[in-house]
Amino acid sequence: MTDFQRPNIARLEGYVPGEQIAEPTVIKLNTNENPYPASPKVEQALQQISVGDLRRYPNPMSDDFRTAAAKLHGTHRDQIIATRGGDELLRLLLTTYVNPRQCVGMTEPTYTLYPVLTAIQDADPVLVPLKDDWSLPDNFVERVNRHACALTFIVNPHAPTGGLIGQKALERIATSIKGILVIDEAYVDFTDDPNHDLVQWAVNSTNVVLLRTLSKGYGLAGLRFGYGIGPHHLIAPMLYKTKDSYNLDAIGQTLATAAINDQPYAQTNWRRVIEQRNLLSKVLTQMGLNTISSQANFVLATIPDSAKHSASEIYQLLKQQHILVRHFDHDRLRDKLRITVGTEEENVTLIQALTKLL
Amino acid sequence: MTDFQRPNIARLEGYVPGEQIAEPTVIKLNTNENPYPASPKVEQALQQISVGDLRRYPNPMSDDFRTAAAKLHGTHRDQIIATRGGDELLRLLLTTYVNPRQCVGMTEPTYTLYPVLTAIQDADPVLVPLKDDWSLPDNFVERVNRHACALTFIVNPHAPTGGLIGQKALERIATSIKGILVIDEAYVDFTDDPNHDLVQWAVNSTNVVLLRTLSKGYGLAGLRFGYGIGPHHLIAPMLYKTKDSYNLDAIGQTLATAAINDQPYAQTNWRRVIEQRNLLSKVLTQMGLNTISSQANFVLATIPDSAKHSASEIYQLLKQQHILVRHFDHDRLRDKLRITVGTEEENVTLIQALTKLL
Repeated sequence: MTDFQRPNIARLEGYVPGEQIAEPTVIKLNTNENPYPASPKVEQALQQISVGDLRRYPNPMSDDFRTAAAKLHGTHRDQIIATRGGDELLRLLLTTYVNPRQCVGMTEPTYTLYPVLTAIQDADPVLVPLKDDWSLPDNFVERVNRHACALTFIVNPHAPTGGLIGQKALERIATSIKGILVIDEAYVDFTDDPNHDLVQWAVNSTNVVLLRTLSKGYGLAGLRFGYGIGPHHLIAPMLYKTKDSYNLDAIGQTLATAAINDQPYAQTNWRRVIEQRNLLSKVLTQMGLNTISSQANFVLATIPDSAKHSASEIYQLLKQQHILVRHFDHDRLRDKLRITVGTEEENVTLIQALTKLL
Repeated sequence: MTDFQRPNIARLEGYVPGEQIAEPTVIKLNTNENPYPASPKVEQALQQISVGDLRRYPNPMSDDFRTAAAKLHGTHRDQIIATRGGDELLRLLLTTYVNPRQCVGMTEPTYTLYPVLTAIQDADPVLVPLKDDWSLPDNFVERVNRHACALTFIVNPHAPTGGLIGQKALERIATSIKGILVIDEAYVDFTDDPNHDLVQWAVNSTNVVLLRTLSKGYGLAGLRFGYGIGPHHLIAPMLYKTKDSYNLDAIGQTLATAAINDQPYAQTNWRRVIEQRNLLSKVLTQMGLNTISSQANFVLATIPDSAKHSASEIYQLLKQQHILVRHFDHDRLRDKLRITVGTEEENVTLIQALTKLL
């Protein structure tokens, strides 16, 4: 069969999303969704939409959402771009700022989509291994600058460990790095410190873009809505040139605006998730499953060598009991499970199942 | 201010979407939306969705929609990719099959998004002017082959004239062209001949992909939903490698499936639009505004030199009366207006306004 694919695409294996199972009885702790649904105000907004509202093209710039996000964060609207989940922002950053054959910096391990999107852009990932304690190596910037990386991704809180880098350290990185620094804050709503807020610094920077998503913090993974925050000179080319002309549908724009406008509801859920995460971490550690202190809505638990089953076996055995967690076939993660924080009831069921298996 | 943009992006002006005006009293005949809303079955499907359904990630492959589309067209599901409007499919075709510096064939004029997406991919458009009667020149294939175009776009029915190329002529093009032939069928639901159907030919070809959209035919421009049909070897790399991993939200997948499943409703509307288009064409011609025989949901009308106002002036004067049509600042289109077919009432209002102006 004739193969028309570009060489970089033909080589590519493609990203494998975490399992999505429609079965409602499954306890799904594998893809970091929020255990709670979105605000009742989002439900109200949904009920007011009728198909007649969908006849015309939507607002191409998601103006209402961007106005609401700018108000929430104390920025200008032109420092915000709304995107189809965080994934679209990641892609647009590469499309706009990285030439084929240029390098893209990232840590190892990191969010597994970064190297895939980099390969689609026919650019080269520069993987800088994290230290044994999962912190950034001191020569991180030197390593990415040596390859003249046009752009560097840092997921913060980190996936899949949940570790958080503070603003001071990020400022040192941004000022010494040669290209654009993208800080993927998909999990930032779940940090213990509510004062951790990089927005004012980012919008006043020359080279920093933050990624936010409504998938985790707002219980709207099914809606596909995220946004980028940064200085206007980095946001505008994506907004006016490289994004698909109508990238977000009318329903998504309406619901996402309602969601971020109900901060009390969202913040109450964040606190519940944080409480449950800290409890889950503590119990897992007491059971002998070492966990790293997580600032995200998941914990990374290490299955001890002494256990009856390997991490990969436990993943399979839990799945047989309709409990899904995530196992990565990666050198430094093979003995670990990444467990999304569920409701109290889901977490208790998980702990009971794990206790029996260990 | 530091400018990090790639050279091809820095040069780019960006696509300018047609005006979207929220004002409900405006008669909006400028962006080829359907004058009728989507089916009551889509409304029912919408009303059954609650925000709890949005907590989890959506099906990454839009399986239910692709199953329904495959059934509708008599193809296999793996010959279909669902995309965020037709625009996402156009972008994915370039991302997957066109290297930077390669050429992309297209007619001149054509859908104005093609050269913009080509520039974003850092590829070079090869523009082949249509003949005076807006038909394809006989040496079209020779021209695109001379530049070894990796991919060629033909919008059929053509925008902005509404002309239709038949299957025989397209078969001759596809077999002699070197690269992939994309036939953009955004307007195909409005052809007079209900037997014009390229699907079986395309899925059995080596190099043909068809584009379909729910924006025009199904009254769902605000939903952003389209799809591609082609042989599996051309569809699979986009489906499994280059599209964003969760490119379509849960609501969109549900509503789009309901829409294409209600063919009687959609087809009734298509017939109403076709009737109104043929009537509008006839009346405009009687008024001295030459129109080309259109097979789409718009007509391209020429303002005669003898008229009191130029096309551009009439566009502005209609706008003052809250009637929006489209004027293109393009050599061969400057004396023309592209008018979307509205409801009978809207078309009558337009004709009355035009009569006063002429």
